[in-house]
Amino acid sequence: MEILGFDNPVFAQFAFYSTVLILKTIGLALLIIRSRIKRKVFAFPEDCSQIIVGKHHLKPTSDDAYIERLRRCHLNNLENVFPFVTVGLLYVLTEPEASTAALYFRIFLLSRVVYDIAFIRALPQPSRTFSYLTGVIIICIMAWSVLQKGTL
Amino acid sequence: MEILGFDNPVFAQFAFYSTVLILKTIGLALLIIRSRIKRKVFAFPEDCSQIIVGKHHLKPTSDDAYIERLRRCHLNNLENVFPFVTVGLLYVLTEPEASTAALYFRIFLLSRVVYDIAFIRALPQPSRTFSYLTGVIIICIMAWSVLQKGTL
Amino acid sequence: MEILGFDNPVFAQFAFYSTVLILKTIGLALLIIRSRIKRKVFAFPEDCSQIIVGKHHLKPTSDDAYIERLRRCHLNNLENVFPFVTVGLLYVLTEPEASTAALYFRIFLLSRVVYDIAFIRALPQPSRTFSYLTGVIIICIMAWSVLQKGTL
Repeated sequence: MEILGFDNPVFAQFAFYSTVLILKTIGLALLIIRSRIKRKVFAFPEDCSQIIVGKHHLKPTSDDAYIERLRRCHLNNLENVFPFVTVGLLYVLTEPEASTAALYFRIFLLSRVVYDIAFIRALPQPSRTFSYLTGVIIICIMAWSVLQKGTL
Repeated sequence: MEILGFDNPVFAQFAFYSTVLILKTIGLALLIIRSRIKRKVFAFPEDCSQIIVGKHHLKPTSDDAYIERLRRCHLNNLENVFPFVTVGLLYVLTEPEASTAALYFRIFLLSRVVYDIAFIRALPQPSRTFSYLTGVIIICIMAWSVLQKGTL
Repeated sequence: MEILGFDNPVFAQFAFYSTVLILKTIGLALLIIRSRIKRKVFAFPEDCSQIIVGKHHLKPTSDDAYIERLRRCHLNNLENVFPFVTVGLLYVLTEPEASTAALYFRIFLLSRVVYDIAFIRALPQPSRTFSYLTGVIIICIMAWSVLQKGTL
C-alpha cells in the first residue's frame, strides 16, 4: 500500500480535510467579492468606473471596516491552512496512527470554522485568539512528529 | 511506475505548471522591487535613508497607487497559486486521465497570465474578475475529484 | 526505498528544513500577537473594548510602525517559505544528490533567518534585500531542476 494513496486511510482523511480547508479559504475570497458588490466598496478605479451613485461615478476606497475584517480573516486562513497542508503531508509520511491523525485533522478544521465565525461576527475575545491558537497547537504537534523523523 | 514521479506524464505536467506558476509569483515580487526603485517609493526608513531628493532625505511611503496594485496582484497570486499546487498534488494522486489533467493545468496558467495583465494594466472589468473566477473553477473541479476519493 | 520517505536522506532533510521554516513563520505570527499586547496596538474593536487607558476605552489602530514591520516580515515569510516547500518537494522528486540538496536547504534557512533579523531590527540596507534575493536564487535553482524534468 502506498502511503500517499487513497487506500491509506490517514492519507484519504488528510486529502479530504486539506481540500475542505482550501475550499473554505477560497469561499472567503468569494464572500469578499460578494460583500464588495453589495456594499459598493471597490479598491481600484476599473472596478467602479461604470457605477454611478447619485450623479457621480463611484470612487475606489480601501477603508471599509467590514471588508478589512473579511480580508484579514482570509489572510489568516492563508497563513494557517498552508502550514496545515504542507506540514500535514509530511506528517502523513511519518505514518501516524489513523485515529490520532483523524483527531488532529478534525480539531484543526473545527478550530478554523470557529475562528472564521468569531472573526466575521466580531464575537467577544478571546474566542478568536483561542480558536487561532488551537489550530497553531495542532500544526506544532504534527511538526514535532516530522522533526523527530527528519534530519539536519 | 510511481504516481509521484516524472515518468508519470500527469505528474511531470503538474510539476512543470506548478513551478512556472510559482516562478511567475516570485517574478511579480521582483517587479515590485524594480518598480519601487524606479518610482522611489519605499515602505521603510532603512530603504530610503541614503537617497536624497532635492535637499531632503527620501521619506518612506505606503500610498503609491501603482505599487499597491502590484502588491494586490502578487497577493492574489499567492492566494490562488498555493491552492492550485496543493490541491493539484492531491488531484494527481487520484490518477486522472492525462489529457484532462493537462487541459486543467493549461487553462489555470492561462487564466493567471490574463489576470496579471488585466490587473497590472488596469484593463476594463470584468476581465480581471473573469480570469480570477476561471482559475477558481479549475481549483474547484480538481478539489471535487479529491473529495470523491478522500474520506471524513 | 521510497523517494518520499524518511529513509531517503534528501527527503528527511527536506522535511526537517521545511518544518523549521514553517514553525519560524508561525513564530513570527505569535511575536506579532505578543507585540500587540505589549504595545496595546489592536486592529479590531473586540480586541481592545475591555482595555481602559486613562479614562477611555482603547481604540483600534492600524498604524503602529513596528507592528506593520512585523506584519510585512511575516507576509514576506509566507511568500517565500511556501514556494520553498512546494518547489522543494518537487525538487526532492528529481532525486538530487544529497549533499547538494542539503546545501541548498541550509543556505535557504540561513538567508531567511538573516532576513528576519535584518527586517525586524531595521538593519541598514542592502542586508534585507540581499538575504531576500539569496532565498529567491535557491528557489530558482531548485525550480530549474524541476523544469528540466517536467513536461509541457
